[in-house]
Amino acid sequence: MALNKLRPLGRLMRSVSNPVCMPKSLHLTAIPAQKWKIGKINHIAIATPDIEKTAALYRDVLGAKVSAKHPQPEHGVYTVFVELGDTKIELLNPLGENSPIQNFLDKNKSGGMHHICLEVDDIKAAMADLKAKNIRLLSNEPKIGAHGSP
Amino acid sequence: MALNKLRPLGRLMRSVSNPVCMPKSLHLTAIPAQKWKIGKINHIAIATPDIEKTAALYRDVLGAKVSAKHPQPEHGVYTVFVELGDTKIELLNPLGENSPIQNFLDKNKSGGMHHICLEVDDIKAAMADLKAKNIRLLSNEPKIGAHGSP
Repeated sequence: MALNKLRPLGRLMRSVSNPVCMPKSLHLTAIPAQKWKIGKINHIAIATPDIEKTAALYRDVLGAKVSAKHPQPEHGVYTVFVELGDTKIELLNPLGENSPIQNFLDKNKSGGMHHICLEVDDIKAAMADLKAKNIRLLSNEPKIGAHGSP
Repeated sequence: MALNKLRPLGRLMRSVSNPVCMPKSLHLTAIPAQKWKIGKINHIAIATPDIEKTAALYRDVLGAKVSAKHPQPEHGVYTVFVELGDTKIELLNPLGENSPIQNFLDKNKSGGMHHICLEVDDIKAAMADLKAKNIRLLSNEPKIGAHGSP
């Protein structure tokens, strides 16, 4: 689940799964506990205007294990994965016309963080819950990402 | 070691620790293998204009374990840590005058990724090597960060 540019959102709802100082009678109408759990950071996606040069920084200067450049035509991007423990960095560069990265690079000429990918234990429950909490979703159904997972 | 905004750098040096198709005599002058190793991503630091609101997003909307807000006067920031597996998100907000975060927020009104913290097995060797490779360092000696580590 990619949350585009995690920034403060206008409308937030507060769960009452652990209420403090609340009269007992109100517990009857409390919002049920969240049915899904957040997991680890799967990857940080960084859009770059020169994916070869950025890959060289991680590989040749920092000595990290860096994948080859993969075209992902179904996502409109080239990807390079940088292995850094349990969390990867995913370098992104536009592929073809209408790449979802092009608009981002037009606004951020030298590149930058495009999204953070956070794992969840139940993606359908998470999407339904976030939609109910007025969080903008990129699609109504889970899609298969560049890593082959929903 | 915080690498400020990982973006393509102007000058990169390529190591020859795994040379291919190189005449044997040239091996004598090859650059020695890197003496330090890159590790995992320790944290991603995100500067935010409203740290309470951003903390509420992670805690109340996403259900993540979120620390209290800590003042770090020696770094000129307030911090909130979001636990997400092996890699944390560190939320940053300016504290006091001359905060190193203020300039970043002036340029990025809605906040954004300030730095990525990558662990190394030998910080002094890494700093010396990166300096030799013309990478800009923020100081000549390691400093103790908000997590209490160099």
